[in-house]
Amino acid sequence: MTEEKVHEKFMVEALKQAQKAFDAGDVPVGAVVVYENRIIAKACNQMVLLKDPTAHAEIIALTQASETLSRQTENHRGSLEKATLYVTLEPCLMCAGALINTKCPHLVFGAHDPRAGACGSLYNAVQDDRLNHRLQVKHGILAEESRFLLKEFFRNLRKEQR
Amino acid sequence: MTEEKVHEKFMVEALKQAQKAFDAGDVPVGAVVVYENRIIAKACNQMVLLKDPTAHAEIIALTQASETLSRQTENHRGSLEKATLYVTLEPCLMCAGALINTKCPHLVFGAHDPRAGACGSLYNAVQDDRLNHRLQVKHGILAEESRFLLKEFFRNLRKEQR
Repeated sequence: MTEEKVHEKFMVEALKQAQKAFDAGDVPVGAVVVYENRIIAKACNQMVLLKDPTAHAEIIALTQASETLSRQTENHRGSLEKATLYVTLEPCLMCAGALINTKCPHLVFGAHDPRAGACGSLYNAVQDDRLNHRLQVKHGILAEESRFLLKEFFRNLRKEQR
Repeated sequence: MTEEKVHEKFMVEALKQAQKAFDAGDVPVGAVVVYENRIIAKACNQMVLLKDPTAHAEIIALTQASETLSRQTENHRGSLEKATLYVTLEPCLMCAGALINTKCPHLVFGAHDPRAGACGSLYNAVQDDRLNHRLQVKHGILAEESRFLLKEFFRNLRKEQR
């Protein structure tokens, strides 16, 4: 399988999570964490469900992944060396910061977020030489599918608010 | 009571939390969230305890505060309008992002963090006109006390590692 196909395979799983958020009335963003070629955590946005504006898909998936790896490895402090975060939308500042703090080395995202993206759009925090960790970033994987879900969500929201 | 004295009063509570982290072997940073002149959430760093690199004092305190306010108010989505976060050390990117996402309007911190601070040092993310929320920031409150605890912690760590 080519690298591109591998990325698409895991992004499809992230998109399924985004669809779950959509169905629950939450902003449709989904994320999975992959470690040694298998998914160890998946999550969707749960801001509305949990009434918690910090409950972004990335944060929940990264925390789950830390927990999983800590259980498996003694003396592990929950950092995510060798893992990859797949997420349907470019991470915001909070999630970019979480990627840096967990020392996750790889990020693959779908659509850019021109309003709040911190991994290339407004900031490129995950590739800042002044910080003690930098990530390799790949973007544009199934971006159209991600954007379609987001557009649908906000179109419905505007209809409801009329 | 002058504004400065009020800030000091709440920062003393944040420092108590930092001391708790210190005693538990965690990087000594503490935070409290104040709403209508009373503390509604307090937390210390729990990265070592929870083996979770995202378990910063600020994130835990903000999430707690969101939960508290959501319980008290119907249709509340957990945003922190009218609240103030007091924290002993300048927030990192992740925590600055969380402050923006929770729409917390006020931040008071103790010491600057020249290596990772995102509220004036490396970035000033909480006062970025391109984002949809900006905070009022006050710093330097009991900064010496905060720095003292941090220095002690890292001095002990170096001793152990010898």
